[in-house]
Amino acid sequence: MRLSELSARSGVPTATIKYYLREGLLPPGERLSASRSEYGEAHLRRLRLVRSLIQVGGMSVARTKDVLRAAEDETLDQHEQFGAAQVALMGGGGPQGVALEPGAKAQETVDELLAEFGWEQCGNIPAYWMLVGAVASLERLGYPCDLAQLRPYAAAVEPVARFDLEVVGRYPAGDERLEAVVALTVLNEPVLLALRRIAHAHVSGSMPQGQAPARQTLS
Amino acid sequence: MRLSELSARSGVPTATIKYYLREGLLPPGERLSASRSEYGEAHLRRLRLVRSLIQVGGMSVARTKDVLRAAEDETLDQHEQFGAAQVALMGGGGPQGVALEPGAKAQETVDELLAEFGWEQCGNIPAYWMLVGAVASLERLGYPCDLAQLRPYAAAVEPVARFDLEVVGRYPAGDERLEAVVALTVLNEPVLLALRRIAHAHVSGSMPQGQAPARQTLS
Repeated sequence: MRLSELSARSGVPTATIKYYLREGLLPPGERLSASRSEYGEAHLRRLRLVRSLIQVGGMSVARTKDVLRAAEDETLDQHEQFGAAQVALMGGGGPQGVALEPGAKAQETVDELLAEFGWEQCGNIPAYWMLVGAVASLERLGYPCDLAQLRPYAAAVEPVARFDLEVVGRYPAGDERLEAVVALTVLNEPVLLALRRIAHAHVSGSMPQGQAPARQTLS
Repeated sequence: MRLSELSARSGVPTATIKYYLREGLLPPGERLSASRSEYGEAHLRRLRLVRSLIQVGGMSVARTKDVLRAAEDETLDQHEQFGAAQVALMGGGGPQGVALEPGAKAQETVDELLAEFGWEQCGNIPAYWMLVGAVASLERLGYPCDLAQLRPYAAAVEPVARFDLEVVGRYPAGDERLEAVVALTVLNEPVLLALRRIAHAHVSGSMPQGQAPARQTLS
């Protein structure tokens, strides 16, 4: 298909597609002449992925590029690609981004939790430091975040993670599976957060008044 | 305490505290003279909360103000305050923020899920629209997001929500409990997301190579 059809089918303006092409977020099409190229279904899929990472995932163009590059690195095996994509997704966050006050128990607490769940080998991945930072923030605000506080959260995500990996495994190995890893890791995050808040509303019985479920009118 | 001590104990620069006072994020202190005011422990707690919502929760000053105002509205009872704070936390998101393509099954799927879990009365709260939008994004990208896909997520968050409400109930009713609702709703989100990614790394066995858990050196 031509650029105009790629734009129509993806809903992404042609100027934006050209920008993504220049930035390397989208591989070039097959060149037909100096001003025309042909694009395939893989371009369409990639374009939708890029748009979602940026618009839904709130990622920067530079971060999106890192994630796609890591996921495409053919010198890594499947597991390493998954790991590299995850590191890039988190911006390679390490201890330097975490402000720990002297005496902060956050890291000790997180290590105890990981040991309890048999996840010790996950120390030092970006998500580990994200967790240490979040626990430290809670503690600093005076909300004790000890093992008893973290345990229900860890217990809740374990089956979710097993399910996620099973879903990803249904996609054909290679490009498609890597795109699924990236897309499902990021795009299911708002699903998880929204459901937690819906469950809060249900458990607390605290629905805003006078709001009955309404159906959106589709134009 | 004076402004300087409030700054020292909270780690927030005095210029920033003055800005929060002007914006109404922090109630004024007790005025001692034209240029001096006295602040109490409640100011310190509120200041830490504001800083966390902005720095950890990534909220804007305007959004933070809405959340605090909703949580403080004394014409609402406890459950209504909780609901109002949640609505403000989500930026009052409604159907207008959700781009649904004609024929999109997202809303139908979400309604079926809510019915299955007995959460029907939570239709039309901001989190409901956040979920519909997330499901629509996944579908648009070609990742089927049907009941089978959502069920494990909903099942995972239900015990988390019960636990959250139980924790919040331990705080004395009034200001402190409302602060706890806001802080724990927002600040536990990165905890949940980080743990999901740690569990992914564990389940997939995809730890980046050559990274053993390292302890951060506290200075």
